[in-house]
Amino acid sequence: MLRERLAEISDLARTAGVLAWDQKVTMPPGGHPARAEALATLSRVAHEKFVDDEIGRTLESLRPLEESLEHDSDDASLIRVTRRDWEKQRRVPTELRVEMTRAAALGNQVWIEARATNDFGTFLPALRRNLELKRRYVECFEWDDSPYTPLLDDFEPYMKTSEVAEVFGTIRPVLAELVREAPQVDASFLEQPFAAGGQEAFCKRILDTLGLEEGTYRLDPTVHPFCTSFSTRDVRMTTRYNETGLDSIWSTMHEAGHGHYAHGIAPSLERTLLATSPSLGLNESQSRTWENLVGRSRPFWLHWYEPLQETFPVQLGDVDLDTFLAAVNRAEPGLIRVEADETTYSLHIILRFELEQQLIEGSLDPKDLPEAWSAGMADLLGVEVPDDTHGVLQDIHWSQGGIGYFPTYALGNVISLQIWAAVREGIPDLDAQMEAGELGELAAWLRDNLYSLGRKLTPKETIGRLTGTPAIDPQPYLAYLREKLASLPTHA
Amino acid sequence: MLRERLAEISDLARTAGVLAWDQKVTMPPGGHPARAEALATLSRVAHEKFVDDEIGRTLESLRPLEESLEHDSDDASLIRVTRRDWEKQRRVPTELRVEMTRAAALGNQVWIEARATNDFGTFLPALRRNLELKRRYVECFEWDDSPYTPLLDDFEPYMKTSEVAEVFGTIRPVLAELVREAPQVDASFLEQPFAAGGQEAFCKRILDTLGLEEGTYRLDPTVHPFCTSFSTRDVRMTTRYNETGLDSIWSTMHEAGHGHYAHGIAPSLERTLLATSPSLGLNESQSRTWENLVGRSRPFWLHWYEPLQETFPVQLGDVDLDTFLAAVNRAEPGLIRVEADETTYSLHIILRFELEQQLIEGSLDPKDLPEAWSAGMADLLGVEVPDDTHGVLQDIHWSQGGIGYFPTYALGNVISLQIWAAVREGIPDLDAQMEAGELGELAAWLRDNLYSLGRKLTPKETIGRLTGTPAIDPQPYLAYLREKLASLPTHA
Repeated sequence: MLRERLAEISDLARTAGVLAWDQKVTMPPGGHPARAEALATLSRVAHEKFVDDEIGRTLESLRPLEESLEHDSDDASLIRVTRRDWEKQRRVPTELRVEMTRAAALGNQVWIEARATNDFGTFLPALRRNLELKRRYVECFEWDDSPYTPLLDDFEPYMKTSEVAEVFGTIRPVLAELVREAPQVDASFLEQPFAAGGQEAFCKRILDTLGLEEGTYRLDPTVHPFCTSFSTRDVRMTTRYNETGLDSIWSTMHEAGHGHYAHGIAPSLERTLLATSPSLGLNESQSRTWENLVGRSRPFWLHWYEPLQETFPVQLGDVDLDTFLAAVNRAEPGLIRVEADETTYSLHIILRFELEQQLIEGSLDPKDLPEAWSAGMADLLGVEVPDDTHGVLQDIHWSQGGIGYFPTYALGNVISLQIWAAVREGIPDLDAQMEAGELGELAAWLRDNLYSLGRKLTPKETIGRLTGTPAIDPQPYLAYLREKLASLPTHA
Repeated sequence: MLRERLAEISDLARTAGVLAWDQKVTMPPGGHPARAEALATLSRVAHEKFVDDEIGRTLESLRPLEESLEHDSDDASLIRVTRRDWEKQRRVPTELRVEMTRAAALGNQVWIEARATNDFGTFLPALRRNLELKRRYVECFEWDDSPYTPLLDDFEPYMKTSEVAEVFGTIRPVLAELVREAPQVDASFLEQPFAAGGQEAFCKRILDTLGLEEGTYRLDPTVHPFCTSFSTRDVRMTTRYNETGLDSIWSTMHEAGHGHYAHGIAPSLERTLLATSPSLGLNESQSRTWENLVGRSRPFWLHWYEPLQETFPVQLGDVDLDTFLAAVNRAEPGLIRVEADETTYSLHIILRFELEQQLIEGSLDPKDLPEAWSAGMADLLGVEVPDDTHGVLQDIHWSQGGIGYFPTYALGNVISLQIWAAVREGIPDLDAQMEAGELGELAAWLRDNLYSLGRKLTPKETIGRLTGTPAIDPQPYLAYLREKLASLPTHA
């Protein structure tokens, strides 16, 4: 009974995913109001079905079974994880859940317009509405450190605001110092026209080697790249072809990392609440692995740089591999998070984490956000924000009520290096494989050791299983950045 | 309360529409199994919500209100139409409904493969399964002429099998005679390569003039063109660019006719069961109007032929307008329904109508379908069927359990001419407008007089409102074809 009910709820969640993908990739703009209603209805139906007393009674009756099974067995995990979700969801009135979904869909629509016209004022009411609903949501829960913790928990289960603050407190000064001392690298050759068609063909060539099964995924262009999946065999990656840069390569590899995760979940977990990653931080760790640890590495480009030069001979014919690698690994403060390099990236996140806490705690009025944003960017990255489109309006998340989401990006950076150490141990000749353009063993290792687990274990349990230590440790990440930046040419 | 509940059910139906559109237009093949489950779940949830006792009690309590209102008021119509749907749906067990949805999704997948490999045998079990479920479905209803009537009623409400048989009995001998006596026309110039890109650009140019509001629709390529909509402001048309023909033009105008219908429904009917056409026959009458009555007419091409020649100068530079018009208006028996001309088209339908009745009545075993198909094609159209891909496997409908659907295509042809007479009266200078490339008044007239009504009235009431006679009358259709064929050059 439970499996069947949960399968229904999983189907409804996946269906909402299809609606959201379509909304961002294919829907004509006229469809927004009806789509918001459809998403609200799906959310209501799924929530009502899930928080039903019957499910609670069934979960209770399954305790003896759960205790008789291995902790990481499918069934024990399903009962345990479902119970936690059920207890959380039960606290939230259906109407609030529906209102949040509707406000998110409408807020997203307003944001698109506001960002395009650089008009924070038109976005402000939608933001206030989303924040107000988030505050009511927070009130459904208990917390001991910050009202931000219940929001964080939706994306990074079991993680407290204070724990994130501790990790960020460790990395912030080191990153700031690394950025300050990073050599200046000439990357102007990356800022010339690259035909979108050539980028797309090159991205698809790389994607073909990543070990995703044919006929189980798509790559589509969109404004704000993301990845979603409707089963392990229906993975939707999106990317953006910027006509004056090659960002699409790393954006595609980034989303391919998310895609790999979705694709690698054990088939036995399909149509359950376990058919996802344990947390967004862990999920992000894998997009960062493919984007950065693979996609900015010398071994990878020893194979791929020649094909890239052949695709763009005019632009790259005279640029040697070392120059290219220095440019794509440089540290250079900028305005836009999604264009940020590996070193500055987490500083963008720290700003958002701090502003989100202030918004939720009430110490920052949303109308003062642009000012606080500018001050934070000056402080953290030393850059001046020219307008809101390149500032507080740049990200989609707040428009759709995604408060508590940002920290998982930086946690993903941190976790990616913890797991990478385990990968290195598991595949000693990984560099040689990458030099040969072979990524299949890497993909298989990650699938077998991580992705296939789905959400059976907690984030920390999962990290512990791979690394031996169930904790988030920023040291490998900081060491990686230090080493990377030290290896750059210093002909500034 | 009722409005709210029905809005939810409408949202779920529209959501299933998004899933189905995505399945046909964008989904990677790996997604089929999960998609079938998701569609089955949506169907279960929507069905359970709709057949609820509470809705029946509310409908009953609204009888006095209904009787106090004008017959064609939104509210009276909503109560009346919903009651009919509710009474129908109540007869169908949820599990049967769900099984039908699942079998349809899976059958569709099998059919794609079977059609591609010309293998009726692999399709047969899926067809049997769908037919078996349809027979169980029929048993939920009462009928007095044929067990086919309850199936027909799902697509052409209030229409009996015997009524369709009567209409088809009238047109069959006339069509057969017209085809026999039609002049041979050389249309070989249409069977040369036309670049898909040029076709797409030309189709979009025409689409731009049809009066659909910008930002409210899409046109995408697919294998089997169709149109669906998720609100009046989110209309999805699809078409097919055949590299050796110009069919895409008429396919696009055909789907644009469906699109216009969806787009023109009164906004007050959004999120109700009335936000559609009264029947598929009426809906099809409009696709045929735009495809044929507009799209094959001399006035239309007096405007558009020059642009078409400019798009394909090599292929059409030496072909004059008369030759072009003769080719696109000729009657010539062929194997494929969707490629059939106006005169032979309904004969393809009559074959399917007869086979469907036999399958449902049990007088034809599905395994004998290919043979019966060949015999019927020889009899009705005098053509020999070379293989099942060009025969019984050509259409998507049976694969997804769409039995009872086909007759509405021919009814649409018939109805389109009944309504066209009213259009002519309403817009006396229509030909001059078409010659000037102006279709806006035509679109507005049809929207105001037909599309905006949605499903408030029955098919016959709707026809009666436009034409003065609430009946399906094949004579205008036959007169139109006679006149068309008589006007063709007879230099055979």
